[in-house]
Amino acid sequence: MICTPTLLVDEKKCRDNIRRMAAKASANELIFRPHFKTHQSHQIGNWFREEGVTQITVSSLTMAKHFANDGWKDITVAFPVNVLEIDMINELSSRLTLNLLVESVEAVEFLNQRVNTSIDLFIKIDVGTHRTGISTDDIPQLKATIERIETAKHLTFRGFLGHAGHSYSCRGKEEIMNVHADSMKQLAALKNYFPDALISYGDTPTCSIADSFEPADELRPGNFAFYDLMQLQIGSCRQEEIAVAMACPVVAKHPERNEVVIYGGGVHFSKDRIEENGSILFGKVVKDEDTKWGEIMDGVRLVKVSQEHGIIRAPTEWIASVKLGDLVKVLPVHSCLTMDLLRDFQIV
Amino acid sequence: MICTPTLLVDEKKCRDNIRRMAAKASANELIFRPHFKTHQSHQIGNWFREEGVTQITVSSLTMAKHFANDGWKDITVAFPVNVLEIDMINELSSRLTLNLLVESVEAVEFLNQRVNTSIDLFIKIDVGTHRTGISTDDIPQLKATIERIETAKHLTFRGFLGHAGHSYSCRGKEEIMNVHADSMKQLAALKNYFPDALISYGDTPTCSIADSFEPADELRPGNFAFYDLMQLQIGSCRQEEIAVAMACPVVAKHPERNEVVIYGGGVHFSKDRIEENGSILFGKVVKDEDTKWGEIMDGVRLVKVSQEHGIIRAPTEWIASVKLGDLVKVLPVHSCLTMDLLRDFQIV
Repeated sequence: MICTPTLLVDEKKCRDNIRRMAAKASANELIFRPHFKTHQSHQIGNWFREEGVTQITVSSLTMAKHFANDGWKDITVAFPVNVLEIDMINELSSRLTLNLLVESVEAVEFLNQRVNTSIDLFIKIDVGTHRTGISTDDIPQLKATIERIETAKHLTFRGFLGHAGHSYSCRGKEEIMNVHADSMKQLAALKNYFPDALISYGDTPTCSIADSFEPADELRPGNFAFYDLMQLQIGSCRQEEIAVAMACPVVAKHPERNEVVIYGGGVHFSKDRIEENGSILFGKVVKDEDTKWGEIMDGVRLVKVSQEHGIIRAPTEWIASVKLGDLVKVLPVHSCLTMDLLRDFQIV
Repeated sequence: MICTPTLLVDEKKCRDNIRRMAAKASANELIFRPHFKTHQSHQIGNWFREEGVTQITVSSLTMAKHFANDGWKDITVAFPVNVLEIDMINELSSRLTLNLLVESVEAVEFLNQRVNTSIDLFIKIDVGTHRTGISTDDIPQLKATIERIETAKHLTFRGFLGHAGHSYSCRGKEEIMNVHADSMKQLAALKNYFPDALISYGDTPTCSIADSFEPADELRPGNFAFYDLMQLQIGSCRQEEIAVAMACPVVAKHPERNEVVIYGGGVHFSKDRIEENGSILFGKVVKDEDTKWGEIMDGVRLVKVSQEHGIIRAPTEWIASVKLGDLVKVLPVHSCLTMDLLRDFQIV
C-alpha cells in the first residue's frame, strides 16, 4: 500500500519505449548505447539487456561503478573527465571498457600521466548547445587533441561525441528536425575530415523524432525510456508513452481557492518546471486507473512545490471529488531528476 | 581529498547561527523548536543539543523517525497530517511526544478513529502565505476543529502553528518587518480569542530580523542554521553568516564565452533559483580560503545547471586563473534542498 510519495513505473510503456528505440537503432545499423542516468536502476537496466543492449552511457564515474557492479562491461561516461577521480578511473578501467570524454589537450595530458591501463577516449564536440565541447568547425583544436591522444601510452582515440541538447528548447517536430538536420550536417563534415572516427550522437528529442542518423555510428538517448511532461511539451512523445507517474497523498483541501495540498514537493519532483500559457507547472494530474493511470486531466496541475508540499490547482468539480488520504497520480516535468531524488520506484 | 561535488559546512558559522537564534528565543522567553529539515543530520542536531534544544520540528514522519532514532523525544511534524501513515504515527507516538498538524475536522475524525496512543495536535493556521492552513479570522472553523479534538479520546489540542512563508518574497528588512507585524497582529487576535492555546511561529526571514514575537510562545525557524543565497537576497542574513558552500571540480573551460564547466548540477544544487537584475542564478562563487571560503566574487556565477553539469560565467581574469581539476566553492541558492540532495557533508 502506498503511503508516501512513490514513483510508479509502467513496465509495459517503458519496455515499449525501449524496444522502439532499440529497433530504430538496429534499422539504421547503429550501436545503441542508451543513457542510464534516467533510471539508475539495475532492474530497468535488465529490460535493456533483454533488448540486446550491452553498451551503456552514464553521467558520472559513480554511476559507472554502480552499473559495473551489475556486470556492465562497456560504459561511456558522457561528461567531461573529472581528473580528480583518477583513482576511480584506474580502478574501473582495469575491470571494463571505459570510454571517457575529453575536450582539451590539457585533459589528455593529465590522463597520459596518471592512467595506468587502457582507456578509450571520445572528444566531446559542441553541435550547437554551447554547454561544453569543442566546436565541430574548430579543426585545429580537434586535430591537436587527437594527435595528443595518439601519442599517449594507454589512450586510444575512438571518435566524437555530440549531444544536441538545444533540442530541449524546440516546440514541435519541425523545430526538432531542424536541430537534427543541422547536427547531422556538422557531423557529416566531421566524418569527412576524420573518416575513421566513430560518431556518437543522442538526445531524446531528435532520437525520438528522426528516422535517419547518417553519418552517426551510435545513439545515446536516455530520457525516452520514461519520457515526461518536458518531452511532451517539446514534442518528443505522446502522453500515452510517458512511463512514470508520482502517486502522492492528499493532505489538505482548500476549495475556497480551488487548491489541494499533496505530500509531494521539491524533494520528490525536483524544482524543474515548464511554462505553459504563461503559467509555471511542476506536474499534471492524470486519471487514476487501478494501479496504473489514464490521460491528463484538463486543468488539474501541480502549480507550486516547496520542500514537501505540492499545491494542485484544479476546477471545482475535481476538488470536490477528492478527499484526504486519496492518492493522486502526477506526471513529473523531468523524470530523470525525479528518479534521482526518489532512488526507488514501484513497477506497475 | 575532495574529488566530487561536496557540501562543506563551516562549523563555527553554523554554531554561531544556532547560538544567536537560541539566545533570541531565550531572551523572549520562547520555546525554541528549530526545524531540522534544513540539515537532517544527527551530528548537527547535537550542536543544537549543546545549546539546550530538546524540542524539534521536522517536515515528515520519516524525518521524525530519523531523529527519534537519535533520541529526540519531542517532535512536531510541521506538515498537514498524512492519514495514510497512521501506522507510523502510532509507532512514533508510543515512543515520544509527537505533535501533529491538522487543519480540518475531517483529519481529526480520521485520527480519532485510528490513533491508539496520545497525540498532541496543533491547528495549522494561514497567516497570509496561502499555502495551507485555516485562515486566522475563520473563527467558526477553528472552533469546530478544536471542539472535535477536545471530544476525541487520544487527542489533545495544544495550539496554533503559523508559518509566514510569504516573507520569502520580501526584499529587505522593512518588507520582512511588515510581514512580521501583520502576522503578530493576527496571532494576537487569535490569542485573545483562544487564550490557552500555544502559538507556534517561525520562518527564517522574520525570526532572523525581528526582535520581539509577542504573542508567540514558540519559534520554529530552520534554514537560519545554514542560510543561503535566497536568504541573503531576502535580507535575512549577511553573506558572512552563510555556513554552507559546495566544493565542485572544474572539468572544462570555455574562455571564448567566459564560461567554466563544473561537476555540480541539478542533482547537487537542486534547480531552485533566484533572479538578480533579470538573470537567473543557481549559485555564486566565493573566494577560496584553505578549507573554508571568503567573500562572494563579483560576477562569478553559476548560471545554468543540468543533471551533473554546472556552467559558471565569469570575468576573463577569473576564467584565466582557473584550471582543470581545481575546486571552486559555490554558495547554493537553497541550502535545505542542497543538503537533501547530497545527504552528506564535510565539516570545516
